[in-house]
Amino acid sequence: MGAGLQPTREGDVTFACDAPFQLEAGGALQPVAIRYAVYGELNTARDNAVQVCHALSGSARVADWWPEMFAAPSTANGGPHNAVFDLSRDCVICANILGSCYGSTGPASTNPATGRPYGPDFPVVHVRDIVRTQARVLDELGVKHLRTVIGASIGGMQALQWAIDYPDRVGHCIAIGTAPLSAMGLALNHLQRKAILLDPKFQGGHYPAGQQPADGLALARAIAMCSYKSAELFGERYARKANRNGEDPLRSLHERFDVAGYLDYQGEKFEKRFDANSYLVITKLMDTFDLARGYASEEEALRRIRAQVSLIGISSDWLFPPEDVLSLAKRLQAAGVACNYTEFESAHGHDGFLAEMEAIAAVVNGSVEARRTCARG
Amino acid sequence: MGAGLQPTREGDVTFACDAPFQLEAGGALQPVAIRYAVYGELNTARDNAVQVCHALSGSARVADWWPEMFAAPSTANGGPHNAVFDLSRDCVICANILGSCYGSTGPASTNPATGRPYGPDFPVVHVRDIVRTQARVLDELGVKHLRTVIGASIGGMQALQWAIDYPDRVGHCIAIGTAPLSAMGLALNHLQRKAILLDPKFQGGHYPAGQQPADGLALARAIAMCSYKSAELFGERYARKANRNGEDPLRSLHERFDVAGYLDYQGEKFEKRFDANSYLVITKLMDTFDLARGYASEEEALRRIRAQVSLIGISSDWLFPPEDVLSLAKRLQAAGVACNYTEFESAHGHDGFLAEMEAIAAVVNGSVEARRTCARG
Repeated sequence: MGAGLQPTREGDVTFACDAPFQLEAGGALQPVAIRYAVYGELNTARDNAVQVCHALSGSARVADWWPEMFAAPSTANGGPHNAVFDLSRDCVICANILGSCYGSTGPASTNPATGRPYGPDFPVVHVRDIVRTQARVLDELGVKHLRTVIGASIGGMQALQWAIDYPDRVGHCIAIGTAPLSAMGLALNHLQRKAILLDPKFQGGHYPAGQQPADGLALARAIAMCSYKSAELFGERYARKANRNGEDPLRSLHERFDVAGYLDYQGEKFEKRFDANSYLVITKLMDTFDLARGYASEEEALRRIRAQVSLIGISSDWLFPPEDVLSLAKRLQAAGVACNYTEFESAHGHDGFLAEMEAIAAVVNGSVEARRTCARG
Repeated sequence: MGAGLQPTREGDVTFACDAPFQLEAGGALQPVAIRYAVYGELNTARDNAVQVCHALSGSARVADWWPEMFAAPSTANGGPHNAVFDLSRDCVICANILGSCYGSTGPASTNPATGRPYGPDFPVVHVRDIVRTQARVLDELGVKHLRTVIGASIGGMQALQWAIDYPDRVGHCIAIGTAPLSAMGLALNHLQRKAILLDPKFQGGHYPAGQQPADGLALARAIAMCSYKSAELFGERYARKANRNGEDPLRSLHERFDVAGYLDYQGEKFEKRFDANSYLVITKLMDTFDLARGYASEEEALRRIRAQVSLIGISSDWLFPPEDVLSLAKRLQAAGVACNYTEFESAHGHDGFLAEMEAIAAVVNGSVEARRTCARG
C-alpha cells in the first residue's frame, strides 16, 4: 500500500504570466500556479503515465488520500492485494485543482492586482478550466498521452472532461461515483454554501487568514458528510445511541446523539485543513459540471471520446446515485463510446471510494481488465 | 374539502396553575395552556371523537393544513372524494403541541418566573408530555374515548404514544410516515439546529420578538425540505434548470439553480410564520421519540396497546423510510397488536401526506376499512 509513500517529484507549474488564463465563466487569472506530484517515473516511451484527478478536498499527493490504490513498494512487481497503481510500471501524476487550498492558485492566493488574497473575488471555475490547467502541467512534464485518467466524484468529472476535451491524449478513462449533479445534489451544495455565508466570520469572504468562518465551514462539511455516507451505514454505526462522550440527548437541547457527535467532529476536523472560500468555489464547479459545456450538445461532446470509458457506480451512493451513473454509461454507449459500467456494492455511500479502497481497487482492476478484453476483442 | 372550513369551536385549556406540570426530561412548566380546535360536534354517546395530531409546523386548525381530509360541507353525507373526516359523523379535535408557536405554551410564551419569554429556558419536551397535555384537553372537552387518533410524522408519533399510554381511550390509531427517527434523521435534525445557532441573531436564544434568527431558521427549513421531498421529485421538477428568476448559475458563485431558489423561498416563507426556539424544541422531541420511553422495553410498551393500529409508509420517504415503518408494524404484530401496514406510493417523499392529500385520504380510508373488516372478523 502507499501509506507514507512520498512523491518522486513535486512542484508547481506556473503559466499565464504574460497573458491571462481565460476562464469558462468569463473571468480570468494571471498568473496561474498548479501544484503537482509525480510518483514513479515516466518510461522512455512515455506511455506509462496515469493521471489521478482528486475530489473536493484532495491534494496532489495521491498516496496521502488514496494509499491502498498503490502496490506496496516491497511487492511492487505484483503484491497480494489489488493495487491499481504499480510504480514499477506506472508513472502516477496528480495536480491540485484550481481553486483549491493545497498549493494551486485559489482564493487564498495573493491577487497580484491588489496584493491581498483573492478571497471572494476569486472567479468561478468550471471543470473544463481545471482540465485545461492539468494539460499545461502534463505539457510541462513532457507527457503527451495518458494511459489512464482516473478519478472519483469531482475527480471523475475531470476524468470524463479529459476524455472529451483531449480525445487524442487519453487511452482509458475511469470515473467513479460521478455524473452531472442531480437536483438533490445541487440543493445540498447550495445549502452548504449558505451555511458558510451565515457564519458572521465570513465577512463577505474577506476574512483574515487564520480567522475563517470555522463554524459555517464545519456545518457545510457536516451536511456534506450526510450526503457522502448512507443511511444504512449511519444506522449500523450510530443507530440511536447517545454520544460516546457521555452526553444525554434525552435531557437537554444541546446534548447529542452519537451521529451528531460524529458529524461535529468531522466538521471541526475539516475546517482546520480547508479554506471556506475554496469550498465555495469547488462546490460550485461540482454544480456546473455539464458534459455538453462548450459543445453543441451532450451527444456531440460524447462523440468526441476515443478513450475506453469505465464508469463505476456505488450502490449506496445517494449524492451520485448509481442509476445516474448507469444512465450516463448508456448515453456514452449510444454516442458510440466503448464504455463499460460496474456497480460497486458498498454500504458506505459516495465515500465508498475512500472508505473501502481495497474493494474499489479490485473493481477498478476489473474495469481495466474489461478494457483490455475489449481492446483485444 | 375543508379549505376555508372554520372550527366549530376553538380555545385554550389551561392547567397546572397550582402545581407544576412535570416533564419527562426533568423540567416543569407552570401553568400550561393548550390551544385546541374542534370541528363538528360530539354526539350524545360521545363516541364520535377523532383526534388529529399535527406535525412539526402544524396548528390546531386541521382544516387549514389538511383540508382534503374533510368531506366538503355540501356533500357531508358522502361526497365524491375520499374524505376521511365527515363532520356529519365525526367530531374532529386537534390540540397545538406544547412547545409550538401556534397558541399553546412554548418558548415565545411568557415565563411567569421572569415576566419575559422562556426563550432558550423552555424545557425539553418529549412526545409523552404532549400526549399528556392532549389528554387534559380531552378531559376538559368531556371526551373519554377516541374512535380514532391519526397523525403523520411527529403527529404519527403522538398517535402511537396515545395507543401506548392510554390503551383504554383509543379505538383506532393511524400513523403515517412515522417511526423512531433513524441515525440519518437524527443527523439532519442536529444540522438544522446548528444552522439556527450559527445565525448571530440567535443570541443564545434570547432574541427579541420580531428579531429572530431568520436566516438560520430559513436554512434549517431548507435542509428539512430536502428530507421532506424526494430526489426523484426534485429531479422531475427542477432538474438542472437555472433559477426561474433569470439567474445564471454558471456565471457567478451566488446565482442559483432552480432547486436552490425553491429552497430559499421555502425557508423565507417559513421563518415568517415560525419561531426559531420552537423549532429547536420540536425537532428535539422528534429526536427523542422512543416507544420504550417510560416502560421496561419497547415490547412491554407495545403490549399495552388495545387499539387497532394502521401504519402507512410513504414509498419515497427517506426521512422515515417505509422499511422503518414496516419494521415497526412487524414489531407491533409480534407484540400481539392488531396492526396493518400499507405502503402509499408517492414520489413526494415524506411530504406525501400533505402534497397528495386526496391520495393519502384514500389510503387512510382503506386502513379504516381494513380495521372494520378486522373488527367484524
